[in-house]
Amino acid sequence: MDRRSFMKKAGLATGAAAAATTFATPALTQSRKEMVVVATWPRDFPGLGTGAQRLAANIETLTEGRIKVQYFAAGERVGAFDSFDAVASGNAQAYHAADYYWKGKHPGWAFFTSVPFGLTYNEMNSWLHFMGGQKLWDELAGEFGLKCLAAGSTGVQMGGWFNKEIESEEDLKGLKMRIPGLGGDVMAKLGASPVSLPGGQIYENLVSGAIEATEWVGPWNDFFMKFYEAAKFYYYPGMHEPGSTLAMGMNASWWGSLNKTDQEIIKAACGRENELMMAEFNANNGTFLTKLLKEHGVKLRKFNDDVYDSFGKAAEEVFATARDHSDLAKRIYDSFAAARQDVGGWMNLSEGPYYEQRNRVLGI
Amino acid sequence: MDRRSFMKKAGLATGAAAAATTFATPALTQSRKEMVVVATWPRDFPGLGTGAQRLAANIETLTEGRIKVQYFAAGERVGAFDSFDAVASGNAQAYHAADYYWKGKHPGWAFFTSVPFGLTYNEMNSWLHFMGGQKLWDELAGEFGLKCLAAGSTGVQMGGWFNKEIESEEDLKGLKMRIPGLGGDVMAKLGASPVSLPGGQIYENLVSGAIEATEWVGPWNDFFMKFYEAAKFYYYPGMHEPGSTLAMGMNASWWGSLNKTDQEIIKAACGRENELMMAEFNANNGTFLTKLLKEHGVKLRKFNDDVYDSFGKAAEEVFATARDHSDLAKRIYDSFAAARQDVGGWMNLSEGPYYEQRNRVLGI
Repeated sequence: MDRRSFMKKAGLATGAAAAATTFATPALTQSRKEMVVVATWPRDFPGLGTGAQRLAANIETLTEGRIKVQYFAAGERVGAFDSFDAVASGNAQAYHAADYYWKGKHPGWAFFTSVPFGLTYNEMNSWLHFMGGQKLWDELAGEFGLKCLAAGSTGVQMGGWFNKEIESEEDLKGLKMRIPGLGGDVMAKLGASPVSLPGGQIYENLVSGAIEATEWVGPWNDFFMKFYEAAKFYYYPGMHEPGSTLAMGMNASWWGSLNKTDQEIIKAACGRENELMMAEFNANNGTFLTKLLKEHGVKLRKFNDDVYDSFGKAAEEVFATARDHSDLAKRIYDSFAAARQDVGGWMNLSEGPYYEQRNRVLGI
Repeated sequence: MDRRSFMKKAGLATGAAAAATTFATPALTQSRKEMVVVATWPRDFPGLGTGAQRLAANIETLTEGRIKVQYFAAGERVGAFDSFDAVASGNAQAYHAADYYWKGKHPGWAFFTSVPFGLTYNEMNSWLHFMGGQKLWDELAGEFGLKCLAAGSTGVQMGGWFNKEIESEEDLKGLKMRIPGLGGDVMAKLGASPVSLPGGQIYENLVSGAIEATEWVGPWNDFFMKFYEAAKFYYYPGMHEPGSTLAMGMNASWWGSLNKTDQEIIKAACGRENELMMAEFNANNGTFLTKLLKEHGVKLRKFNDDVYDSFGKAAEEVFATARDHSDLAKRIYDSFAAARQDVGGWMNLSEGPYYEQRNRVLGI
């Protein structure tokens, strides 16, 4: 999905309010900490926004109010993409965002959200907590005065909506598709014309034929966008965001000023939200997938092997650029790739074939 | 794996100590709560034991000692399988266990750990938190004076170690295999001879030929059991425990006596541990799978479609018995089956084919 454009729009809609509300850091006392959270999601945005709001409320509850949390949705205090600077500078204490928004500042950020041919939710958790990922995230975040924790996931995203079938790399040439970020870079290398559009403009562009394809998130979120009215072919599996992790990014000085208990409470709250949001996406994706198929005549299509081979080749070229950025970018990539190899190999024997065999036998 | 037998052995080894240490419930004050945790795992047992210990320590940290936790491994205070009664009666406040240990008390318990052809870790979380599972677990646990929360997972378990190849249902007839619980019931329906053996006796029985096959957990735990010395064929995907959830089962009156903050802290701590333990199993399974294949000449085999079809047919017969037990058992089964259908259908488009395509393209 293009959170960037969508959120920019959300931010602009309340831009005046945002401009008027850039506060200085509140005074901190030892007994009570203020935690201003500036999120990159519109208020009550299903899954991402509601999850971030649940997490914010939970931190205040779990600390019995020792940490007083004020939550601002995108544009309510700062624009979505100003949240990084707001937190790094200490004007807010935390953001809730997809860290790949900051890849312009350093390409390493992308790996802690999701990259093409990257890690799933389960693999990301193994990498972060037991294979060196969090340590590298700390190093990267530390360079910007931040401390980041995983605090939500969308899981595997769909490949997108197309108004024609995609049977070979040829079918991608010249295709006008709305797909942002590294996924868009992959598409561009294959001759497609990736474009960026705010969430609210995708539907009209798809209906008018100005674009021929778009990705967004998955059945739950996509259902309400009504893309099925203009593009019937719904492709899977998406290669571009196989498990987008959302981050609670905190001002490092503020984090360091918390006592050990409150740090651990925030870690627990983020860990719980990470699992809950993933569970919520999977639960709703199942339900809304059924509705899309049964009520709206959506035609599911699986990217064939040739198309996936092309995606893979292009993704390696995209990675090469990121890797060459710096020593830290290379170490992040190498650690990520080692985790993908190790845990990915285990998935070949566990979740992958289990889903395949169980669902085949039961007719799911 | 047969935690039952293994843990019984662990319990017996320290049986004298266990017999001498059945305390009455400590007095509770409003300002400070005692939480005696009686686990079903040996001390420091990798993954299960270490995870339960981490959780226990974390609850004390997060509550700043308002809840004082004393953790007892299997046999240190009560035998592993006495933990249910110890907690239900109030002699301890909580157990950490696989709730399918209690299926003799009610068949519904099995569904909250794992059943053949059941839910994976991700599916279980969706069911529990967003599709009615936790409510049914509360109802079942309430009948026994308990309150249970998910607090760890092993993920998909391997199908087991065999000293010959399994190419058809015929090859299972008469096969002496160590496999407990509902998985064993499935094997029995196919003509195998499932047996129960304590963990410490499996290796010698496999070497002597007294048994021809065994399951345990997965590469991480299995590596140290050295089954590869006696049975070279390591089969996947396991059908019997596709995502074993471990439970923190608490005395319901004690749970009710906690203030809202401490209840929420325990929920957060359990949620975080659930995700962490899963991540730890996946991280280590990947690493130890590589060691098994490269250093010990293990031959991986995938159960073929015919064998899986046979498993599926037998599993349905096993379920029929559980379903017929009571109204509550039927409602648990129906809710479980609906979640499996809905979320499982989504896995057909997301994690399943993503692993397949990514790993094929990258040669993982």
